[in-house]
Amino acid sequence: MLFLIPTIKYTLPTLNIHPSKYKPKQHLILESHVQYRRSSVIKCKAAVAWEAGKPLVIEEVEVAPPQANEVRVKILFTALCHTDVYFWEAKGQTPLFPRIFGHEAGGVVESVGEGVKDLQPGDHVLPVFTGECGDCLHCKSEESNMCDLLRINTDRGVMISDGKSRFSIKGQPIHHFVGTSTFSEYTVVHFGCLAKINPAAPLDKVCVLSCGISTGLGATLNVAKPKKGSSVAIFGLGAVGLAAAEGARILGASRIIGVDLNPARFEEAKKFGCNEFVNPKDHSKPVQEVIAGMTDGGVDRSVECTGSIQAMISAFECVHDGWGVAVLVGVPNKDDAFKTHPMNFLNERTLKGTFFGNYKTRTDIPGVVEKYLKKELELEKFITHSVPFGEINKAFEYMLKGESIRCIIRM
Amino acid sequence: MLFLIPTIKYTLPTLNIHPSKYKPKQHLILESHVQYRRSSVIKCKAAVAWEAGKPLVIEEVEVAPPQANEVRVKILFTALCHTDVYFWEAKGQTPLFPRIFGHEAGGVVESVGEGVKDLQPGDHVLPVFTGECGDCLHCKSEESNMCDLLRINTDRGVMISDGKSRFSIKGQPIHHFVGTSTFSEYTVVHFGCLAKINPAAPLDKVCVLSCGISTGLGATLNVAKPKKGSSVAIFGLGAVGLAAAEGARILGASRIIGVDLNPARFEEAKKFGCNEFVNPKDHSKPVQEVIAGMTDGGVDRSVECTGSIQAMISAFECVHDGWGVAVLVGVPNKDDAFKTHPMNFLNERTLKGTFFGNYKTRTDIPGVVEKYLKKELELEKFITHSVPFGEINKAFEYMLKGESIRCIIRM
Repeated sequence: MLFLIPTIKYTLPTLNIHPSKYKPKQHLILESHVQYRRSSVIKCKAAVAWEAGKPLVIEEVEVAPPQANEVRVKILFTALCHTDVYFWEAKGQTPLFPRIFGHEAGGVVESVGEGVKDLQPGDHVLPVFTGECGDCLHCKSEESNMCDLLRINTDRGVMISDGKSRFSIKGQPIHHFVGTSTFSEYTVVHFGCLAKINPAAPLDKVCVLSCGISTGLGATLNVAKPKKGSSVAIFGLGAVGLAAAEGARILGASRIIGVDLNPARFEEAKKFGCNEFVNPKDHSKPVQEVIAGMTDGGVDRSVECTGSIQAMISAFECVHDGWGVAVLVGVPNKDDAFKTHPMNFLNERTLKGTFFGNYKTRTDIPGVVEKYLKKELELEKFITHSVPFGEINKAFEYMLKGESIRCIIRM
Repeated sequence: MLFLIPTIKYTLPTLNIHPSKYKPKQHLILESHVQYRRSSVIKCKAAVAWEAGKPLVIEEVEVAPPQANEVRVKILFTALCHTDVYFWEAKGQTPLFPRIFGHEAGGVVESVGEGVKDLQPGDHVLPVFTGECGDCLHCKSEESNMCDLLRINTDRGVMISDGKSRFSIKGQPIHHFVGTSTFSEYTVVHFGCLAKINPAAPLDKVCVLSCGISTGLGATLNVAKPKKGSSVAIFGLGAVGLAAAEGARILGASRIIGVDLNPARFEEAKKFGCNEFVNPKDHSKPVQEVIAGMTDGGVDRSVECTGSIQAMISAFECVHDGWGVAVLVGVPNKDDAFKTHPMNFLNERTLKGTFFGNYKTRTDIPGVVEKYLKKELELEKFITHSVPFGEINKAFEYMLKGESIRCIIRM
């Protein structure tokens, strides 16, 4: 089934361009030619996780052509995110192996499947772990980015159209991861999970916008929305929390209070606008009381980026009554319970959660890339390390040791 | 101390009017004259609660003149609210008796104390249990109505300026209630707790805007803000819940689902826009699941007006992921804990609390009265009963039996 789609359908992608807009360009024709050759199985290198927690192995994999509504993408740069590590460790989960991880990346469209209208070979794209089908209630709502069709599903290791994988090694299927599997030179992604971005944007930088950085940034810019001159507490100073701080810096918050159990992170956090720090370990009373004491009753906004249930409660209870808004970003454990006295709400506090910073993959992420190009958003400071593809396991080591914010893997 | 303030200070209130705006009017001159005579102790009738749960007794009380920043108001109409009954019953509270209850009312300014600039004798006012000093952080914030100085304090039975009561019977002080004590022909109120309203508004109708109706209405109009055509669940179909439904009706919600354990309320609720009903007793599964089943995953907005902790949790969990907003209005018990799985937030639900519908007493309540005068808001349907002052205990009976929404007491 995987190989039965007539390749002729993919040989003339430029026909998807409306004639009035057709401008022949050398690179497009070349890409079209490239696509023609590649609209069959591609053999390439991928980093395969054969077992939970074991180093990835660079293997030659076969990548099937994209089926209807799918796109095959040549990955140029990918980054490592905690979520990859979490599912690679597979602690407390049903393990799904062998699998190709990776979901923060930048690449170029190699070929498109039937029905893909807005992408063509040569387009620069960021694959995203959650998508935007454009047709469901969530996609049609201005308020939600939780697409019914393409919402993240960490348990699914196959493509949604036919429940099969596009990756194989000598006939053995290799599982996908969150619909992206970017630890491969080529991958197949649903068109709804691809943000088409300005080709002027350097993919080795903007690839980090595929997940964590947008998640933290959007939590502040789109959800917490602190006013200029206001106070913001950021719980957790990993990549997501630093991006949330960056959002507060961009909006002109005057007090950005970083909260972390690891004081080593405070120095780094200054680059992202944090100008005060609280280590809960340094205090005998709950951190929400410490923050309330520092801020005449509470901060204007807080953003929780750890996933710890206690931090969630503290992040909510540390916002000022009357106007305080707390935003939850970090993913909790499945048995956690959020618990607080309801008067904390009645006193006009707001608690909201966000998913991927409330960004819609196709509609909004291109605009975040533009923000970087206009120098409103600084991405370089998130990128602390870089390794060639062959050394991808080093990226895991940097993250496990807490040394890196983001390590770019050059394909 | 109470009577030492020289009355001469209050004899020429019209001097507070800027000369360029001074237009002598017969009624003002008369009121000024009236004020002159009354800027000493007034003897009048009040309904005094001598003991918890015992019928009120109409007594002759002495009402001292207003001190600095205070206003003495002639109450013309008052209504009975559950909060009066709750503190009159004094179950599980430190009782504070003798006391003059009452906090939903309409009246006319009789005299003003030193420093009161925006009110003068003859002004029509609604006394409100929570105020707006205009100077604190909350009053200066556009987002909050929780005035630091004049926020409701149910434990305080005295005026804030000197910690003393303005009511007495033969020298025995009688406690105030939430700064209003409107079950008296005259009462003394801090100027920040008085909304100056259009004198064209009938006080026997708009008096109900002093508390419950504005609380429910504002919860929907100012906080939940359902869009035209959306779905709204209202938990609790008492006066506050019906006002919340009225707000949803005004904003054009198409599905207004009333939730109550008492099916007798459903018929009445239709007048307020409720067009579907759920009685949790009729279902074996939690009411949030029933509502999600009726609405393809959840309502767009919910408003909780019972104060039951289980209803609060249901009201939150019944809103749609991606965009649902739940608003808590009902006051919980002091030992309650709000508990939910944090993923319910992470899936982009919002939970907010509100106090007095987020209305600022002086800034916003006059506008709600205008809404009634423009016939955008219907108040008549909230007023089910009316009694003369001498029969005030009947109003308690109607409420305790669940027969009334609002009973107006004619002074």
